[in-house]
Amino acid sequence: MTSERATVGVGLVGHAFMGRAHSQAWRSVGPFFDPPLTPVMAALAGRSEDRAGAAARELGWASVETDWKELLRRDDVQLIDICTPGDSHAEIAVAALDAGKHVLCEKPLANTVEEAEAMVAAAERARARGVRSMVGFNYRRVPALTLARRMVADGRLGTLRHVRAQYLQDWLTDPRSPLVWRLQKDRAGSGALGDIGAHIIDAAQFVAGQTLTGVSALTETFVRERPVVGGDGTGPVTVDDAALFIGRTSGGALASFEATRFAAGRKNSLRLELNGSAGSLAFDLEALNELWFHDHTEDAGTAGFRRILVTEPEHPYAGAWWPPGHLLGYEHTFTHQLADLLKAIADGTDPSPSFADGLQVQRVLEAVEGSAGGDGGWTPVKTDPEGSA
Amino acid sequence: MTSERATVGVGLVGHAFMGRAHSQAWRSVGPFFDPPLTPVMAALAGRSEDRAGAAARELGWASVETDWKELLRRDDVQLIDICTPGDSHAEIAVAALDAGKHVLCEKPLANTVEEAEAMVAAAERARARGVRSMVGFNYRRVPALTLARRMVADGRLGTLRHVRAQYLQDWLTDPRSPLVWRLQKDRAGSGALGDIGAHIIDAAQFVAGQTLTGVSALTETFVRERPVVGGDGTGPVTVDDAALFIGRTSGGALASFEATRFAAGRKNSLRLELNGSAGSLAFDLEALNELWFHDHTEDAGTAGFRRILVTEPEHPYAGAWWPPGHLLGYEHTFTHQLADLLKAIADGTDPSPSFADGLQVQRVLEAVEGSAGGDGGWTPVKTDPEGSA
Amino acid sequence: MTSERATVGVGLVGHAFMGRAHSQAWRSVGPFFDPPLTPVMAALAGRSEDRAGAAARELGWASVETDWKELLRRDDVQLIDICTPGDSHAEIAVAALDAGKHVLCEKPLANTVEEAEAMVAAAERARARGVRSMVGFNYRRVPALTLARRMVADGRLGTLRHVRAQYLQDWLTDPRSPLVWRLQKDRAGSGALGDIGAHIIDAAQFVAGQTLTGVSALTETFVRERPVVGGDGTGPVTVDDAALFIGRTSGGALASFEATRFAAGRKNSLRLELNGSAGSLAFDLEALNELWFHDHTEDAGTAGFRRILVTEPEHPYAGAWWPPGHLLGYEHTFTHQLADLLKAIADGTDPSPSFADGLQVQRVLEAVEGSAGGDGGWTPVKTDPEGSA
Amino acid sequence: MTSERATVGVGLVGHAFMGRAHSQAWRSVGPFFDPPLTPVMAALAGRSEDRAGAAARELGWASVETDWKELLRRDDVQLIDICTPGDSHAEIAVAALDAGKHVLCEKPLANTVEEAEAMVAAAERARARGVRSMVGFNYRRVPALTLARRMVADGRLGTLRHVRAQYLQDWLTDPRSPLVWRLQKDRAGSGALGDIGAHIIDAAQFVAGQTLTGVSALTETFVRERPVVGGDGTGPVTVDDAALFIGRTSGGALASFEATRFAAGRKNSLRLELNGSAGSLAFDLEALNELWFHDHTEDAGTAGFRRILVTEPEHPYAGAWWPPGHLLGYEHTFTHQLADLLKAIADGTDPSPSFADGLQVQRVLEAVEGSAGGDGGWTPVKTDPEGSA
Repeated sequence: MTSERATVGVGLVGHAFMGRAHSQAWRSVGPFFDPPLTPVMAALAGRSEDRAGAAARELGWASVETDWKELLRRDDVQLIDICTPGDSHAEIAVAALDAGKHVLCEKPLANTVEEAEAMVAAAERARARGVRSMVGFNYRRVPALTLARRMVADGRLGTLRHVRAQYLQDWLTDPRSPLVWRLQKDRAGSGALGDIGAHIIDAAQFVAGQTLTGVSALTETFVRERPVVGGDGTGPVTVDDAALFIGRTSGGALASFEATRFAAGRKNSLRLELNGSAGSLAFDLEALNELWFHDHTEDAGTAGFRRILVTEPEHPYAGAWWPPGHLLGYEHTFTHQLADLLKAIADGTDPSPSFADGLQVQRVLEAVEGSAGGDGGWTPVKTDPEGSA
Repeated sequence: MTSERATVGVGLVGHAFMGRAHSQAWRSVGPFFDPPLTPVMAALAGRSEDRAGAAARELGWASVETDWKELLRRDDVQLIDICTPGDSHAEIAVAALDAGKHVLCEKPLANTVEEAEAMVAAAERARARGVRSMVGFNYRRVPALTLARRMVADGRLGTLRHVRAQYLQDWLTDPRSPLVWRLQKDRAGSGALGDIGAHIIDAAQFVAGQTLTGVSALTETFVRERPVVGGDGTGPVTVDDAALFIGRTSGGALASFEATRFAAGRKNSLRLELNGSAGSLAFDLEALNELWFHDHTEDAGTAGFRRILVTEPEHPYAGAWWPPGHLLGYEHTFTHQLADLLKAIADGTDPSPSFADGLQVQRVLEAVEGSAGGDGGWTPVKTDPEGSA
Repeated sequence: MTSERATVGVGLVGHAFMGRAHSQAWRSVGPFFDPPLTPVMAALAGRSEDRAGAAARELGWASVETDWKELLRRDDVQLIDICTPGDSHAEIAVAALDAGKHVLCEKPLANTVEEAEAMVAAAERARARGVRSMVGFNYRRVPALTLARRMVADGRLGTLRHVRAQYLQDWLTDPRSPLVWRLQKDRAGSGALGDIGAHIIDAAQFVAGQTLTGVSALTETFVRERPVVGGDGTGPVTVDDAALFIGRTSGGALASFEATRFAAGRKNSLRLELNGSAGSLAFDLEALNELWFHDHTEDAGTAGFRRILVTEPEHPYAGAWWPPGHLLGYEHTFTHQLADLLKAIADGTDPSPSFADGLQVQRVLEAVEGSAGGDGGWTPVKTDPEGSA
Repeated sequence: MTSERATVGVGLVGHAFMGRAHSQAWRSVGPFFDPPLTPVMAALAGRSEDRAGAAARELGWASVETDWKELLRRDDVQLIDICTPGDSHAEIAVAALDAGKHVLCEKPLANTVEEAEAMVAAAERARARGVRSMVGFNYRRVPALTLARRMVADGRLGTLRHVRAQYLQDWLTDPRSPLVWRLQKDRAGSGALGDIGAHIIDAAQFVAGQTLTGVSALTETFVRERPVVGGDGTGPVTVDDAALFIGRTSGGALASFEATRFAAGRKNSLRLELNGSAGSLAFDLEALNELWFHDHTEDAGTAGFRRILVTEPEHPYAGAWWPPGHLLGYEHTFTHQLADLLKAIADGTDPSPSFADGLQVQRVLEAVEGSAGGDGGWTPVKTDPEGSA
């Protein structure tokens, strides 16, 4: 019976966009996925007592802390869910892991490779004690992309030739759009590259089952001054507005990536296409319930890209929700992430993607920045000596 | 502050597919819509104590009743949410309203026009005492369809000429699919017609802002015997597999409707298209975040059907969830429904669609059955003498 | 060698829209289809010598006649291609067949069933003498629809359950659009029904391999007065603007048809969808190189509607043109029609669709008009006593 | 009257794929475009008398030459249409221009920059004598792309931020596909890059109205040995299978290009997308009658990518063919090209694209090869000192 199951107390750090999305997932994972560990929404941490308190009430958290470090001291909290901006990930995650708390950390893992390396080291130490960690590349849990990964692993695409990934948004198209924290390098680390570029790097590598070995890159800041938020005048945009790169993968495919906030009319278009010797797959996050598959082994007279509506019981995660044809949305990916995390903790296995996976994405970002900051020439992606990533 | 708001205790009757969908909505309406009345998930009623108890724990209901009538006696329950099959709607709804409880009743309102009329009468009695009632045509709250209604009301389509509605599913395509209760007239009332036909009748009339005045209809049961569930041999299918009808609307448009469970490959394709003198709209529930609009007043050289991704802050309900381009799913419609219901109760106004709207849909279904049962000839849809529907 | 092949002299009657389309086909059939009979564009007949002469020069016809009857007397003309409005089809076709000329007659075969019956009788007489006749339902030769027919015949759809056909245009949406001959019953016979409704009746029956057995119908003239062409004031529209009907087919499927000139934004959208027990097909003339196929026998986890780009060498007609992926257009259907007609004449076989097929479509139109003119009740489609149609 | 118009005698060199396409265009330009100069299909040149003779009869050419040089001596030939592989373009074009014949030369202009420069010099010399030259980038005359150019020029996209171009084919996916001449560097010059990459470079620059200033590139030959045609064993593939590059344009946009013959399921998918500060455009050659436009100046509540079906009288070239909604195909682009060429010759103006435009594309290809052959670093595209390209 559900009521006799073991529980896991959760402490959430941060309550903005990601905190809201994670809260909905914590509320939903029980009713739909019947997890082996029942999550208890124990506490929310936020700097402002008023705002954190209001958020806790609204989002269903039982208590509030104004210092996230208090969460680490609480016995009723066994898991820390980090939903703050990237510049605080390393400090919180390392402390939490060292305190013996499981950690789910939003992407990107950190703002620098150095921080990410420290986090991987902490995750390794914690793992030896049975403490788990996971980085929140939630798009791996869009059912269509999980299915895509499964199909590639099953050989439905044969030898991969091309990986083509774009993440197109348009919210900076207007030059009067203000200078928010995401446009400041010290807070955000990078611009479109780290925010949405990180997503397509992870998604493409995950579905392909291959990593990028090197890149040639360009970045650009189209609008270099923007109005200061709540102030007078303008200030400098210190991150990229768009990033393009081409590269090669560990399996010999060619790869093309583009991340931009200046693609007018594309609201949240994470597009992925893979072409292999036996077939192709195509996906667009703006139609996230659909996966397009071309089976190149079929008779040419009836072959073609087919639209798989990924809502069947056979499909990843879909059976837990509604009957076929009833669409899922953006937020469901977070619930799927928690279902897998809770299962891994209960089973004593390592959830995926790991902090090492997050570090590897960070190293791709580093190579992109290196190439774009130079002459756009070929820049290898660093790997661990022991090849752990 | 949220915590000081008035509350409304909710009692849910039924915990199958619809009960699960409504439960998720009751859990979600608070965090996302900040309603003026805070719902309390007080009790779930189900005939089997074991199954109802398990459902209550899983879905978040605080207590259990094995007789729905107990809910009407509880002071901590002010709203009854009816999620049972259609044959019990009338009894529960009338009793609840007469007991002074607000009622949300799943569609179709009832299995017969007579029952629906009794429910409308009860709703009228209750309304005089400030007790509210609503029928759950949740698709009105797909943001794209709410937007469609708004655009038609704003005159963006001009004079309507055509209303074209289809609800295509395929779960009965296989003749070995078993004889479930939905295929038995005494439980389900009718087949595709009452189940999914009712949805397109309501959705089309809602968006058009017009009602059907008469129809010519055909129905068919393609597979007349199916395997008995959990038994030997086969039994007769006593409802329609598919229903087609054409008709005229109160505003002079021609209308075409089709509901079927035999459209192989169409999983949940509720399609709606309206053509008017100034523009057209098209929608498909399998891509429910999209509304296609053709503005016929534009220059012909650049006119065309445009895909509106209905996830902008300007769009109905969308702003309460996520940033632009982040998709919503099927279940969100139920949350929107509750947000509007709670607001109406708090404001002391009548929520929409009313039981009278549900009765009017029932009368269209009656006309369709009458025409199809005869020679397919023209059959007017009955209206109230006072024209209340 | 091509130059030693037998030739067939062609006489074209009419040089408006259809005459132009047929002329392009006569010019193109040789270079692309290497037909067993080489067509010679001998003469064009038109009432005005000036206009016919200009058209002949422009379109590549070697001579001109101002009376089509002269074509029947010419020894260098063995085939009459009738591209005039429907009210003259019967007279020309019967005379030509009786004069021993092969006949290609544009659709609809005639404006009335009586005329069509006379044409079928003449075709039967001529056939006994080896003289061939064909009605120009050119959409059968859209490669995607020919492929659709082949797939249905091969059993890829199993038992048909639904046939859904729409022909949506919008050129009458504006009430200021003038009163052209197509809106006058004495010239055009009927409105949307006979013009574009005839196309979907033929296309749907052809692909399904089944005929309509009866219908319930509605027609409407939305705008009843329109500006007189080149004159003052307005005159009455005497044909339908739109026609809707539902029916049953000889194989037990349900059918739904809609033809309209008031679907704002739909320029030439002939849509066809068939659902069967083993699969489904969907088509839209506005994307005429595509056929959408759902194979319902596939694993549900990877099944879905696939877009077949009908430009492969395996596909009907496509191999004669360009490499895969190079699109064909509207006019190619006429060339395909001629390729098949020339082959049939050379082979001494009957081309398809026959005049009897054209008559059968006419009888469906008659049933639709009968039902719509009455109360919309069920109206059987007449068949020949001997069942020849 | 048409018959009194001046004529231009045409000599075609080559009668394979391109020769067939051009022949259909020469046959069609008169009937549909009423050109000021009437083309006379005077002679076809091909090395084999038998094959050239058969082609001339089939395609409608009045005479045959087995040496293209004879065409230059004929008084009845005023225009040379070059449809041979790229390695012979320079010799034929220079000789023809120097002999005073107008020249239409298929793309790519030449196999090397040096040849292309010689051709531009010859074109300049000829131009001084009123002799015209044009390179056959036919996709500029897809009505949707001509319209796209017009809309960009009209400022509908504002400041361009992104140009995204892909040309995806799949005919080399199978490693058993043979070693045809297109895979041999000495004949073809390059692989996917020069064949289809040239098309997207020209199309993207044409629509954008901007040129590429520099690139970073990767190329790959996935299958390095293929079966010899009509022989035993295998031979080396000496050209690229795929080419990717990123770059910057003269107007400050970022550009991404990909050309491949290994995109399983993509038959002829030339995709182009441009994002600007005021709007976006998207196109796919596999749906060549459609142009997708997002107007970013519209209200966000109703904005979206709209599908313009480019078949209206207002659209480029479309009015010459059929009514709205009647699709055009691949081959029509060649007819449009001739219509413009004949008009330019008659008007005494320079047709576009010029040989200088062809040379500029060649220089982009050279930069791509240079970057890909090195370390993928930034490589500027050369321009003329006087900036004539």
